[in-house]
Amino acid sequence: MAYELHYWDGLQGRGEFVRLALEDAGAQYIDVARASNGTNAMMKVLNSKTEAHIPFAPPFLKDGELIVAHVANILLYLGPKLGLAPKDEGLRYVAHGVQLTIADFVTEVHDTHHPLATDLYYEDQKDAAKIRTRSFLDKRVPKFMNYFERVLKQNPHGDTQMIGDITTYVDLSIFQIVDGLHYAFPRAMKKFGTQYPRVAAIHDAVLQRPNIAAYVDSQRRIPFNESGIFRHYPELDQDA
Amino acid sequence: MAYELHYWDGLQGRGEFVRLALEDAGAQYIDVARASNGTNAMMKVLNSKTEAHIPFAPPFLKDGELIVAHVANILLYLGPKLGLAPKDEGLRYVAHGVQLTIADFVTEVHDTHHPLATDLYYEDQKDAAKIRTRSFLDKRVPKFMNYFERVLKQNPHGDTQMIGDITTYVDLSIFQIVDGLHYAFPRAMKKFGTQYPRVAAIHDAVLQRPNIAAYVDSQRRIPFNESGIFRHYPELDQDA
Repeated sequence: MAYELHYWDGLQGRGEFVRLALEDAGAQYIDVARASNGTNAMMKVLNSKTEAHIPFAPPFLKDGELIVAHVANILLYLGPKLGLAPKDEGLRYVAHGVQLTIADFVTEVHDTHHPLATDLYYEDQKDAAKIRTRSFLDKRVPKFMNYFERVLKQNPHGDTQMIGDITTYVDLSIFQIVDGLHYAFPRAMKKFGTQYPRVAAIHDAVLQRPNIAAYVDSQRRIPFNESGIFRHYPELDQDA
Repeated sequence: MAYELHYWDGLQGRGEFVRLALEDAGAQYIDVARASNGTNAMMKVLNSKTEAHIPFAPPFLKDGELIVAHVANILLYLGPKLGLAPKDEGLRYVAHGVQLTIADFVTEVHDTHHPLATDLYYEDQKDAAKIRTRSFLDKRVPKFMNYFERVLKQNPHGDTQMIGDITTYVDLSIFQIVDGLHYAFPRAMKKFGTQYPRVAAIHDAVLQRPNIAAYVDSQRRIPFNESGIFRHYPELDQDA
């Protein structure tokens, strides 16, 4: 049975981290909310008064009766089934820990354009967004990216994959955040390749995987846009 | 061998969610950073140039050679060993999903006092903190708490535990966020018990568990303070 991915239509958002894993593995899946009447199907699960295990928010994955919520949890669940998780059980916790650091980073990316309230428009918190984005680009991006560089450098199996000796869902997620950063902050990321060469190399290597290359060229890959996590607001960007 | 919990000394913070599970189970553990020279031991792991699996930040758990990072990941790892996880494998993913929602909530609690930048003092972002806190109390607390109420109400095994038919680490974490909310926002939480009766009942039931009752009365339970996640700044509180 095909996996059902439930996520908002019209944006990459957090759903994209799951899509990349499903696409890389060539797995059968239905992107439910993008099908006819699909958002209703998703909302029906979210608002269900009888479903035993309701998610707080999209994305969530349905595999038969089981509903798995949260990106990192979905990847923890799918990873072994898709051949995108380490074989060693201990390393699976290590991979999940790095994925949760990526999740925290994604939240901080979101908060660059919504620092005061998710229920206010960006336009109504633009001044605060400028302050938050400056701190994000000056302090947080280097803190996270230098950490990912160290994870690669200190991987006993070599720096061409984040965890262990095979490409995992963590590498696919690294691709996505690097791609997103370049979309949102093209000026600030100009020196990214020389500042974070190992992380940049993961991005490029993932993009050369045949199924990922085919996916990003397809209609299934929604372009980055200003409804997603990574938004290009030129007034928030700054020189590297 | 005793578990090693590595977390900042002097605050409950995110480490407290792990402490509650270890304490409830009566597990042997060392709160490393609270021992003599312990913060150095923690920093040595964080700054190691040779360790294969470095965490991004505390808390992390050392179990022999394995290092597990992030609260939810640590609880995922410890839960089955401590008898605080569902037996059913599918339910473990459900529990982990709810725990990750709690983690997101904790991040939003933190951002009430640090909306603009973690590297700025609270005093330097107080106006933004007031706006963010208002949105948090008016919109986000109800959204999360009503969700947790629904999780309880729709649990096929009854509303006296969050997941399945036994108390899990998720219940212990619900205790902690309810306790923290009451510390940080005593005025805004005045009607909590009538607004969210099932969630409030979980808090009270957890507090009556013998090992938790003994723990919160002990020196090991650091009082809430303004270095932690839940901070009582009267100017941010508001009437219910």
